[in-house]
Parts: sequence; structure tokens; C-alpha cells
Amino acid sequence: MKTPQQITEIFEHHLAMINMPDEPQRLYAPIRYSLAEGGKRMRPVLAMLAYNIYADDVQRVLPAATAIEVFHNFTLLHDDIMDNAAVRRGRPSVFARWGSNVAILSGDVMMIEAYRHLQGVESKYLPEVFECFNSMAARVCEGQQYDMDFETQPKVAVAEYMNMIELKTAALLAGSVVIGATLAGASAEDIQRLNKFATEVGIAFQLQDDLLDSYGDEQLGKKIGGDILEGKKTYLMIISLSHATEAQREVLRSTHLRTDLDDNQKIAAVKEVYDAIGARAMTEQQISVRISRALAILDTLDVPKERTEYMKSYVESLVGRKK
Amino acid sequence: MKTPQQITEIFEHHLAMINMPDEPQRLYAPIRYSLAEGGKRMRPVLAMLAYNIYADDVQRVLPAATAIEVFHNFTLLHDDIMDNAAVRRGRPSVFARWGSNVAILSGDVMMIEAYRHLQGVESKYLPEVFECFNSMAARVCEGQQYDMDFETQPKVAVAEYMNMIELKTAALLAGSVVIGATLAGASAEDIQRLNKFATEVGIAFQLQDDLLDSYGDEQLGKKIGGDILEGKKTYLMIISLSHATEAQREVLRSTHLRTDLDDNQKIAAVKEVYDAIGARAMTEQQISVRISRALAILDTLDVPKERTEYMKSYVESLVGRKK
Repeated sequence: MKTPQQITEIFEHHLAMINMPDEPQRLYAPIRYSLAEGGKRMRPVLAMLAYNIYADDVQRVLPAATAIEVFHNFTLLHDDIMDNAAVRRGRPSVFARWGSNVAILSGDVMMIEAYRHLQGVESKYLPEVFECFNSMAARVCEGQQYDMDFETQPKVAVAEYMNMIELKTAALLAGSVVIGATLAGASAEDIQRLNKFATEVGIAFQLQDDLLDSYGDEQLGKKIGGDILEGKKTYLMIISLSHATEAQREVLRSTHLRTDLDDNQKIAAVKEVYDAIGARAMTEQQISVRISRALAILDTLDVPKERTEYMKSYVESLVGRKK
Repeated sequence: MKTPQQITEIFEHHLAMINMPDEPQRLYAPIRYSLAEGGKRMRPVLAMLAYNIYADDVQRVLPAATAIEVFHNFTLLHDDIMDNAAVRRGRPSVFARWGSNVAILSGDVMMIEAYRHLQGVESKYLPEVFECFNSMAARVCEGQQYDMDFETQPKVAVAEYMNMIELKTAALLAGSVVIGATLAGASAEDIQRLNKFATEVGIAFQLQDDLLDSYGDEQLGKKIGGDILEGKKTYLMIISLSHATEAQREVLRSTHLRTDLDDNQKIAAVKEVYDAIGARAMTEQQISVRISRALAILDTLDVPKERTEYMKSYVESLVGRKK
């Protein structure tokens, strides 16, 4: 078995070797730029770790894992246009650097690139993996649409929010793990269990992401409070709204629009309400419940327990339980 | 064998029956809207006609043909954003009706929809068809990028233009025909010939499209002269520039920017240069050469001649040789 670290290195090495055409330059340069900038490679690593629970030659997952990573980066590229986001992972977004038309079209070709990598899946598994990939891809877009719908929706229920992140974030993690296990020939029952496992992980990961935006470590290079300044309907905001008094609700709803406060004052005002309600603790509690449930599912797989150790430690590291 | 008319009806019937989710409404409504509005269904019909040269149960092509048609309509949806086009087939474009974010995301999910239809291809043929589809899809995007690059490029050579339309328009027609023939079990030699055939047809079709924009029939409901008013580098423009005197070149390059002329005067001024150079006749000549070459290729296929009759008549109808 391979450690998450080893698997990440195998994947990075593979990704660095992939070929793309040079021309038209304005079409392919943004794709190279997007893929070169790192990120955790969480989805391909999860696919390979899932495979590695059942079989050792993790290289067999590389074409599908690459397809997933390219697809994920394509979604970020298009999301940045829709969110008017100038920065991605500390660098100018493709949208900011090349403009919206180039970002649309290079995103399109990046999705096609993702499917091209899927061609590398052995033909025996191709129909099943293809179907899973398509379904996962559509769910990600559905989640993004709900997320955009929320912006203009006066009230978002917690259940609606959970459904949205299950689509937007968890579907891709679940698809990754399912594809990895499928390629390893796992049983239908285990694939079903892993699907549930990764859905819980995905939801926890998104909640963690929401939490970090308001309570994260400035040293990670990420600006704190971006979501608050945008008035974004994150989990913190939605559970706070559902527990707030009328006066607190007013603060949550309108602080980001006030012109008499500076950014730090706005962030402080909203976090004061979060803290009064206990939103941070409730979010941490949700994350903890989801991760515990996910880890418990791993114990029900039809494999010796030690086969799931690396998956467990990787998932715990994702939500900061340990490094 | 089935007539092009019968094949079009079979395809329309199939397309009308396809299911898509209802929610999120803002994601799937634009896709329904795009697919419902008709068009000639040229690409799926070509795929089915190509199949029908070799085998009779044309229904077998429907999943792949639908994938191609959905993909084609996806490209139009995103092109309309990039071209800032408010009208498509006489109705508001998705971009104009729902805005650019909805158009980006519903376009993305439409591409995924296209791939979902491809799942319906028998697994025996899936790897080959999948590869062909991906390659065709990437070529279409490359063509669109070159077309956008031309807008800011001071000089476009005829060969560059031909390469662009081979990618942007002909690749999809060629891919359609190749996929149809592949599913029918045609020989590699015949598939190669049909690829060449459809590439010629696609180039002729695009030149015809350029011609109709300046010399078309107003009764078809299309405004004449749109390309001239945009200063678009069409085939007419590019061959005219390559034959023009200095004075004519000035007219071709700057008329669309003049504020002292109304639209009709601008169109008349540019067409006067086209006519003096003989651009219309040269374009018609190119179309004729390409179509003759295409039809001659059909005669080299390893089938009885009568199997290609409907394909011939369909292609001739596409460029107005007969109805």
C-alpha cells in the first residue's frame, strides 16, 4: 500500500507529463496555467486511495484520476467567471488574466480534455466509469446553479444548503472514490458504502471551508472574512439566521451592505452574532459528526481493517484532525 | 433505405422524447429552449445517412446522433455569449434571455448532457466513438478560438481561414459522418474517405453561409449584411482583401467603422468592392469545387452506387443545388 503522500507524488508526476497542443495558444495556455498551480489534488488522491484499499497497482487509476482533476479545475475556471473572482490560489484567475471569452472557451476545451483522459480507462470498465463521471459532472453543475440561486433567494433552509453542497462539493469526491473502487473491482455493496463515506467527507470538507473563511488562519495566505463581506449564504450564515433574534437577523442580513463600516468592522459585527449564537461550535460539531460517520463506514467495508488506514488518516488530515 | 426527410423525422421524434431533470429550473430550462428551436439537424442526419449507406437499422445511431446535436447546440449557446449575440434562429439567445452566468453554466451542463447520450453507444463501439467525439469536440473549440483571434489579427491569409473553418465547422460534420459509418461497421478505408468527403462538405457549407450573409434571400428571415456591418473576416472579405487595390482595401477595412454612413450604405459600399473583385463568383466557384470533390469521393466507397444516392441529394440540398 502507498501512503497519501506517495500517491500525491505519483499523481503530480503523471499530471506534469501530460501533453496538450500548443496552438491555438490562447486556448491551451490558460489550461496549462490552471493545472500547474497546484491545489491539494484531493480528488485524484481520494480515487487512488479508494483503489488502493482493494489493489496495489494504483497507476491503473491515473487516467480516470486525471480526468477528475482536470474536470475539477475546469469548474473552478468557469466558477471564477460567474463569481467575478479575480484571484485563485493566490494568483490572478484565468478570467482576470485573459478575460471572460478566453476563460469560457478554454474552460470548454478543458472539460473536453477531461473526457479525453477518460479514454484511457480500460474498455471493460469504460461504460460504468463514463456513466459515473457524467452523473457526477452534472451534479456539480446543479450544485453551482443552486448556489447562484441562493444569492437572490430571501431564505435558504439548512436542508437546502446541505443539498446544495452535497451536489456542488460532495458529488465530485464521492464520484472520485466510486470510480477508484470500481476500477479495483470492489463489490457493489462496498462501492455503495464508499459513496456514502465520501459524501459525508465532502459535506464535512465544505463546512470546514465555510468555517475557515471566517475563522481560518491568516497565515495560510487566505483573506479572512471574504464570505461575510459578500453576504454569502454559508453554513455559518444559514444556521445563524435560523437561530437569530430579529435584531441579530438584521445584522446578518444587512451588515455587508453598510457604507458606514469598514471591512474589519463588518466582519467583527457579523462574527459577534455568530459567536452569540454559537455558530462556530455548531459547525465544528457537524463536521465532527460527519467525519465520525464517514470513518465508521470505512470499518464496514469487506476488507481487512488495515487496508483503510491511509484513507482514514488522509480524511482526518483534510479536516485538520491531524496533519 | 430511408430518405433524408424520413431520417430527419426519426431524429426529431427521438429528440422530442429525451428526458431531462426539471430542477434546478434555471439550469435545464435553457437547454430545453435551445434544443426545441429546430435548426436543420444537419449533423445527426448526416450521421444517420452515413450509417444508412452500410446498414438499414438507422435507430442504432440515435444515441450518438443526439450527443452530436446536443453538443452542437451547446457550442452555439456559448458562442452567443462570446459574440454578444442577442438573437439565435429568430428568437432571443439564451445569453440574452437568461444572462451570461446562466448561459455559461447551462452550456456546461449541456456538454455533459451530450456525453450522457454517448453512454447509449454499444460498449463494443464506445471507445472508438468516444475518441472520435472528443477529438471532434476539441477541434470545434480550436476553430472558435482562431475565429476570435482573427478579430484582432490585422491580416488573415486564405489558408488560415480555411484551416479555421475546417476546425470550427467541418470537424463536426466529419465527426458525425465518421461516427455513423463506424457504428455501421464500415471499413477503415471507407471511414477515411467519408471523413474527407464530409470535410469538403463542411467547408462548402461554411462558405455558403458566408455568402448567404451578404447575398442571401431576405425572405429567409435573416438580416442581410450582418457580417459586413461587424467587419467580420469572412471568406468574401478575405479573398477580396487578397485581391484588392489599396483604395479597395481601405473600403473593406474601414467601412464598418464609419459614422457618416447608414447600414445600407455601408453594405452597398463593401458589396461594390466584392462585386468589382468578383468575390461572390469566386466563393460560388469554391463551393462548387468542394461539393463536386465530395460527391466524387462518395463514388469511391466500397458499396453499390445506389446506397449513396440519398447522401448525395442531401448534400446538394444543403448548398442549394436542389431542394
